[in-house]
Amino acid sequence: MEMKLPGQEGFEASSAPRNIPSGELDSNPDPGTGPSPDGPSDTESKELGVPKDPLLFIQLNELLGWPQALEWRETGRWVLFEEKLEVAAGRWSAPHVPTLALPSLQKLRSLLAEGLVLLDCPAQSLLELVEQVTRVESLSPELRGQLQALLLQRPQHYNQTTGTRPCWGSTHPRKASDNEEAPLREQCQNPLRRKLPPGAEAGTVLAGELGFLAQPLGAFVRLRNPVVLGSLTEVSLPSRFFCLLLGPRMLGKGYHEMGRAAAVLLSDPQFQWSVRRASNLHDLLAALDAFLEEVTVLPPGRWDPTARIPPPKCLPSQHKRLPSQQREIRGPAVPRLTSAEDRHRHGPHAHSPELQRTGRKVPWYPSDFLDALHLQCFSAVLYIYLATVTNAITFGGLLGDATDGAQGVLESFLGTAVAGAAFCLMAGQPLTILSSTGPVLVFERLLFSFSRDYSLDYLPFRLWVGIWVATFCLVLVATEASVLVRYFTRFTEEGFCALISLIFIYDAVGKMLNLTHTYPIQKPGSSAYGCLCQYPGPGGNESQWIRTRPKDRDDIDLGLINASLLPPPECTRQGGHPRGPGCHTVPDIAFFSLLLFLTSFFFAMALKCVKTSRFFPSVMRKGLSDFSSVLAILLGCGLDAFLGLATPKLTVPREFKPTLPGRGWLVSPFGANPWWWSVAAALPALLLSILIFMDQQITAVILNHMEYRLQKGAGFHLDLFCVAVLMLLTSALGLPWYVSATVISLAHMDSLRRESRACAPGERPNFLGIREQRLTGLVVFILTGASIFLAPVLKFIPMPVLYGIFLYMGVAALSSIQFTKRVKLLLMPAKHQPDLLLLRHVPLTRVHLFTAIQLACLGLLWIIKSTPAAIIFPLMLLGLVGVRKALERVFSPQELLWLDELMPEEERSIPEKGLEPEHSFSGSDSEDSELMYQPKAPEINISVN
Amino acid sequence: MEMKLPGQEGFEASSAPRNIPSGELDSNPDPGTGPSPDGPSDTESKELGVPKDPLLFIQLNELLGWPQALEWRETGRWVLFEEKLEVAAGRWSAPHVPTLALPSLQKLRSLLAEGLVLLDCPAQSLLELVEQVTRVESLSPELRGQLQALLLQRPQHYNQTTGTRPCWGSTHPRKASDNEEAPLREQCQNPLRRKLPPGAEAGTVLAGELGFLAQPLGAFVRLRNPVVLGSLTEVSLPSRFFCLLLGPRMLGKGYHEMGRAAAVLLSDPQFQWSVRRASNLHDLLAALDAFLEEVTVLPPGRWDPTARIPPPKCLPSQHKRLPSQQREIRGPAVPRLTSAEDRHRHGPHAHSPELQRTGRKVPWYPSDFLDALHLQCFSAVLYIYLATVTNAITFGGLLGDATDGAQGVLESFLGTAVAGAAFCLMAGQPLTILSSTGPVLVFERLLFSFSRDYSLDYLPFRLWVGIWVATFCLVLVATEASVLVRYFTRFTEEGFCALISLIFIYDAVGKMLNLTHTYPIQKPGSSAYGCLCQYPGPGGNESQWIRTRPKDRDDIDLGLINASLLPPPECTRQGGHPRGPGCHTVPDIAFFSLLLFLTSFFFAMALKCVKTSRFFPSVMRKGLSDFSSVLAILLGCGLDAFLGLATPKLTVPREFKPTLPGRGWLVSPFGANPWWWSVAAALPALLLSILIFMDQQITAVILNHMEYRLQKGAGFHLDLFCVAVLMLLTSALGLPWYVSATVISLAHMDSLRRESRACAPGERPNFLGIREQRLTGLVVFILTGASIFLAPVLKFIPMPVLYGIFLYMGVAALSSIQFTKRVKLLLMPAKHQPDLLLLRHVPLTRVHLFTAIQLACLGLLWIIKSTPAAIIFPLMLLGLVGVRKALERVFSPQELLWLDELMPEEERSIPEKGLEPEHSFSGSDSEDSELMYQPKAPEINISVN
Repeated sequence: MEMKLPGQEGFEASSAPRNIPSGELDSNPDPGTGPSPDGPSDTESKELGVPKDPLLFIQLNELLGWPQALEWRETGRWVLFEEKLEVAAGRWSAPHVPTLALPSLQKLRSLLAEGLVLLDCPAQSLLELVEQVTRVESLSPELRGQLQALLLQRPQHYNQTTGTRPCWGSTHPRKASDNEEAPLREQCQNPLRRKLPPGAEAGTVLAGELGFLAQPLGAFVRLRNPVVLGSLTEVSLPSRFFCLLLGPRMLGKGYHEMGRAAAVLLSDPQFQWSVRRASNLHDLLAALDAFLEEVTVLPPGRWDPTARIPPPKCLPSQHKRLPSQQREIRGPAVPRLTSAEDRHRHGPHAHSPELQRTGRKVPWYPSDFLDALHLQCFSAVLYIYLATVTNAITFGGLLGDATDGAQGVLESFLGTAVAGAAFCLMAGQPLTILSSTGPVLVFERLLFSFSRDYSLDYLPFRLWVGIWVATFCLVLVATEASVLVRYFTRFTEEGFCALISLIFIYDAVGKMLNLTHTYPIQKPGSSAYGCLCQYPGPGGNESQWIRTRPKDRDDIDLGLINASLLPPPECTRQGGHPRGPGCHTVPDIAFFSLLLFLTSFFFAMALKCVKTSRFFPSVMRKGLSDFSSVLAILLGCGLDAFLGLATPKLTVPREFKPTLPGRGWLVSPFGANPWWWSVAAALPALLLSILIFMDQQITAVILNHMEYRLQKGAGFHLDLFCVAVLMLLTSALGLPWYVSATVISLAHMDSLRRESRACAPGERPNFLGIREQRLTGLVVFILTGASIFLAPVLKFIPMPVLYGIFLYMGVAALSSIQFTKRVKLLLMPAKHQPDLLLLRHVPLTRVHLFTAIQLACLGLLWIIKSTPAAIIFPLMLLGLVGVRKALERVFSPQELLWLDELMPEEERSIPEKGLEPEHSFSGSDSEDSELMYQPKAPEINISVN
Repeated sequence: MEMKLPGQEGFEASSAPRNIPSGELDSNPDPGTGPSPDGPSDTESKELGVPKDPLLFIQLNELLGWPQALEWRETGRWVLFEEKLEVAAGRWSAPHVPTLALPSLQKLRSLLAEGLVLLDCPAQSLLELVEQVTRVESLSPELRGQLQALLLQRPQHYNQTTGTRPCWGSTHPRKASDNEEAPLREQCQNPLRRKLPPGAEAGTVLAGELGFLAQPLGAFVRLRNPVVLGSLTEVSLPSRFFCLLLGPRMLGKGYHEMGRAAAVLLSDPQFQWSVRRASNLHDLLAALDAFLEEVTVLPPGRWDPTARIPPPKCLPSQHKRLPSQQREIRGPAVPRLTSAEDRHRHGPHAHSPELQRTGRKVPWYPSDFLDALHLQCFSAVLYIYLATVTNAITFGGLLGDATDGAQGVLESFLGTAVAGAAFCLMAGQPLTILSSTGPVLVFERLLFSFSRDYSLDYLPFRLWVGIWVATFCLVLVATEASVLVRYFTRFTEEGFCALISLIFIYDAVGKMLNLTHTYPIQKPGSSAYGCLCQYPGPGGNESQWIRTRPKDRDDIDLGLINASLLPPPECTRQGGHPRGPGCHTVPDIAFFSLLLFLTSFFFAMALKCVKTSRFFPSVMRKGLSDFSSVLAILLGCGLDAFLGLATPKLTVPREFKPTLPGRGWLVSPFGANPWWWSVAAALPALLLSILIFMDQQITAVILNHMEYRLQKGAGFHLDLFCVAVLMLLTSALGLPWYVSATVISLAHMDSLRRESRACAPGERPNFLGIREQRLTGLVVFILTGASIFLAPVLKFIPMPVLYGIFLYMGVAALSSIQFTKRVKLLLMPAKHQPDLLLLRHVPLTRVHLFTAIQLACLGLLWIIKSTPAAIIFPLMLLGLVGVRKALERVFSPQELLWLDELMPEEERSIPEKGLEPEHSFSGSDSEDSELMYQPKAPEINISVN
């Protein structure tokens, strides 16, 4: 099986490759004996300036149809994952993790060891390449000619777009290779080409059985300069690697599997790195052995080799596998470093370094507007505008409901526009969207009932609360109190979020059930039945008849009257007046409201789930899911309008004036309240300050999280300052209060994600950063302000629909927190529990204990919320920090690290390395990469909106 | 690293093992050079009588705590899959497919090659074993003593039941080994012990770093007679294998990984088979090399080695891997051959051989009753009884609704009991449950409206239809027409099922909407408003007032009257009479009915899904899911009773008499119909015969499918004969018509499954067969008959709830057929389509074309169904067979094989091998095992019930 390489001398003179005779090589894969790819080489030093190697597209062309109708057919392709041609179905399989048989790798190794290896081959075209490759001693001239003709034959590529007919590559191989520097035109508009980044290179593996060969023929070529090799590859990329594996007929599918093995090897980043720098056969085989060292082996009895494994959510970290020098070349900004990996490196839920310093925002100001000049920003504006308006309607409607019109939809629109726009212009974190969030809504409701209990004039009292809150917040800014946020661990945040969500759910259901009191259901025997229209004449004085009957039946027995059965409104118009309990009841409203409530809730929930379904193109799924609330409201309004029943509707003033009748836009400072209430307002203001501080700062921490890679820095204190100033303004105008809203701000950032567009089949797009600018937010709030003129339309929105959306918000927020997941664990038998990292590291009883403590805290908060002392609940939320501190006596730091996160003192108390959970357990194997599969991301929706 | 084996001579004298010096062995894993395990050996011939090797439980005990606190701790265990001890969490991981690193397998190989191999070691206790194993030349006497003490140290086993404290094995190792033949008592009630079948053996791998060793120490022992080795293993099973892997400190976790590799090797069935028969080291290494030959390799760059792969649904077939002799030993009845594999072997959707012969049932008759003496049969009776009663209520209620009481709930109960019990006693397939199925219900509805169109007396006409149907069916039986069933391919079956399901859905929604006409919704301006109670006196003749107003307002303007506002019933009681449109309307009923309808539908759907959720113990999930309809009906009734509204209820006669007033239980043969209608009835009877033949025989084919492994044979003709006779009986009594019901019969069989109880963690229970007997069915129908006395309770069931269940049945049946899956494909972008085998082998455009043709046929059927000619729809269903025949001109046999199945002529037309899809494509690789992942099971619910 020895093969002499006739052209070898010529190549050695022209470039680096040296072929070591195969006999000299240790055929036993022994780690450490091969040359290390770390060693400096000229190719590497040349590349030091280049950030990374180009992406490699690998294609397997198989020789089929022996002996009658030989043809090359592309049967597989690889970028990151394998795609197999389903010959019968005429389609590419879904990308999957390639699986190999060990013997095929070993056979490939021995074929390469004995075959021709040309590194830095100077061939400029397919013809030259074929000539070089076939210059093997063992071939007779006739065979060589036959082989060359065969290799120059155009391969069949299956093309996805045309469907049934295979599409041919460039018509003339030489022509294509001539203009390789010209922009590559795709003859078939192959969708794969658009996915590959510019600069991508190709590698081709040719494999098959060739009956006229007496012995196997193996060749591996690395081209010095990548060249477009005509129609060899499906997409006309410049080729860098070329691998030929031919031989006589063999049992089984030896060459197919060997070809796949070669392709999978080439698609491995570590092997690619090594083979790009290999200077001889020895290096090549060492790279193959290094690959073998690291493969994962599945036992044959427990795993079906034909099963296809879908691509994992995150690729394993190549960081550890890369030699040290390469690691330096690849900086932290290399897209391969996924955000999950990033997150992992900084530990779960790590606090941003911004908490230590206040960002200097001025230098970024001009770019804050220039960066917005991108098409993506338009769709972001539309999306966030609709979300903001939906929020304004829902919260405004509910505030109006809860405060007897002291707030309302108009105030909500106006306030959102004014406060939001001002914040966008001034704030440190311009991506933040201001909104009247859940906690503030809950507090306002309590404050209103408190002021009614003391017969206070609500708006002036509220103004003083606002003045005090602004004062307290300014004190917090002056004392740089934001660092205290580090004491709000996940335990506190989730308690906060869970309580608010539960209040949402309780209120939504409660308000819905209240409607059944307003519009009672008429049971068969109920008295609210009769109704007639009574005219004053001509039966004379009706009282004479009434007196003849017992007094207690007065309201039922009417005596002799002049009556008709006209409906009440018409009756009044005709001069009569409606009598009877049935005139005042509106039938069917209660159940119809319930139907609207349930419809909007379930519809919003279902639309939210569309995002992960298999149906529809992704744009449509994203649209349906993003606008789930808007669509649910529209559906509810449509249903209501279709049936035309007199359901309770949103109250909107007919003109542009405050919802509360008889007040101007400016709130008078005292109104009917005694002067000392302006001082007493400091007490509720203290509570509200706690709430606003917690809400604002936790949101800010989440938004400035590492994984979002914000470049322009945050502004914790500046933002709190802005919130305080806006607090004053909105209180004076009687508008709702505003803080940063987590969910909608995250949605804003998400709609401004920059992602790498070129991505291989099966790969997820890489996150590059966020378009940080002020313009999108500003435009959103200007549009919101303009939408005040939509107000007349809003009065068609039925209240039950808003309650349904309210319920949806509560349920969605509640289901997003880790606490809920742990509560679900309580109901699951251990066997069926998901393989959470948490459960791998903390005993189940401890997990349940932690959940039980959280449940108890929540129960206590709920009890307080139900007492007259409800208004002090912000203080109790703060009390969660104390409970969390006490938990340190019950749980070990390691357990708390997995269940929660550490407080500043704890962080100091355990050694630096211990901060990352994966280092804190000596007994377990290194599970750092496991973390990537279940990142502990900040998933909480603190501001339910 | 050479090790001398001091005790070797003694073993060679006593038994078979021969250790070949490691130098003689080829260290390169080369396939084919090792001795084949197929070769006959004495151990094998001894085992020829034994069906299979015992199951092996493998445990890895690791040496931890060097150097201060050495202790053995069980860190992993294997039966089929790997379970890893999560040290920190103190729990066993979920079972997963083990993954290995290739170097650890290679290191293990070289350690074994140089180590001690004792095959058929005669040790009787742990002490003897330890003495044998440590008799290695390289160890000094002190070291040997230290090592022996260490090996005799009791290992720590984590015990699942106690939770936190490790539980110790038997207190004295020698004592346990003494009474090894005695029944093994579990000291800790380890749940794993109960799962392992009797006769299971244990293998233990001991691995770890031992600082005082100068060189690695490897030993592999196969005990001649399995012995309980004290507390060495977690469950006190007799040990067969023992593997020791110790050595000096090493970088990384070398010994842990090597130990895992040894354990995974031992858990491989092929390796186990070989090593049980190995006679020397050479055989052992050859078995290891054979294992390496067949491993699946995952590339390091694309697969994270720490990711855990959940157990596959079906284990890969070990059939091909086993040597030929072993294959003979394992018969086709070996439980390892899963039903999916079976199904695969017989091709997709193959017809049962029963279609060729009529089963002889008499010999089985006594056992048909004796086989029922099992506890499982009680739960089956309860389950099927509730399902039958639910069916009787729903179908009875709807039939009563559709036939103006010619049928009803009482008839349904009586008929089900009589027909079902008779069928159970007589039929060939006693597991079949008779029910008035969907197609018959649809036909009866059409027949009723037909008879009304011609002003016929329905029941006598129906009697004649029944007589004719019985006649036609008997002709079909006499001509052995059942073989024609082979022409009903999946195409026909699914068209049948889809049409019936759609009719169900359409009817359910239609009936619900009809309620809103009966109970109109009161819109604000509607006239149905007023209501009063008018007394005759004392206002004199009221007419005098009326005449003074325009005539057309007569019904609204009442003039001078003596009125009260009493509710209508009380008004009548007081001598007045209610007047006004509002008196006759019942408000709120329409929406409340809609709520009940939706609630029962969604509740039934949700409960059905509980089965696959992670929550609750499996018994509870199964219960909730199995009784979803019953629970949904109960919920609906509860809601209705709670609100007490006058919703329309199920009509049930007050006493035991036919629902139609004024008829006796026997139907008169002519009634009011002219005599010639008894002849004309032959025409609809022909149609009904087609329907009944299709329904009955397709159900019979499905029930007698291979995969259910019925032992007692089927009785296609006998069953059709029974159906014909019962047809006569039920027609004469005016009871509903009955045929075999697919879904409920399948549920009956499912509840009588015999499964292997002992199953390894991660393995699915093996299906052994079905308790074939007549008693469960008989008891179910006797109970159903007794339930006639429940009738007074049934009148509390609101009709909207039944409509909801009806909708649920239609939707469930529709979603179970492959056609629906293909319709869904139409809506999915190709990228998101599931990896169906179908799509791997048939071009997408062809799949869509096939679906489109089915949709067109369905549309045509629907149009016919909507015309007055609706009653001929059974003929049209038969027409589907013709369409399917015509499809042979459009699609290739291969495509039809994947999309449908072949008709008898086609089966003959393609060669024998071509019948199985996996053989019909030369280009693709052998995908036989893929089939196991997506079995094309008969999933259709032809009889919607």
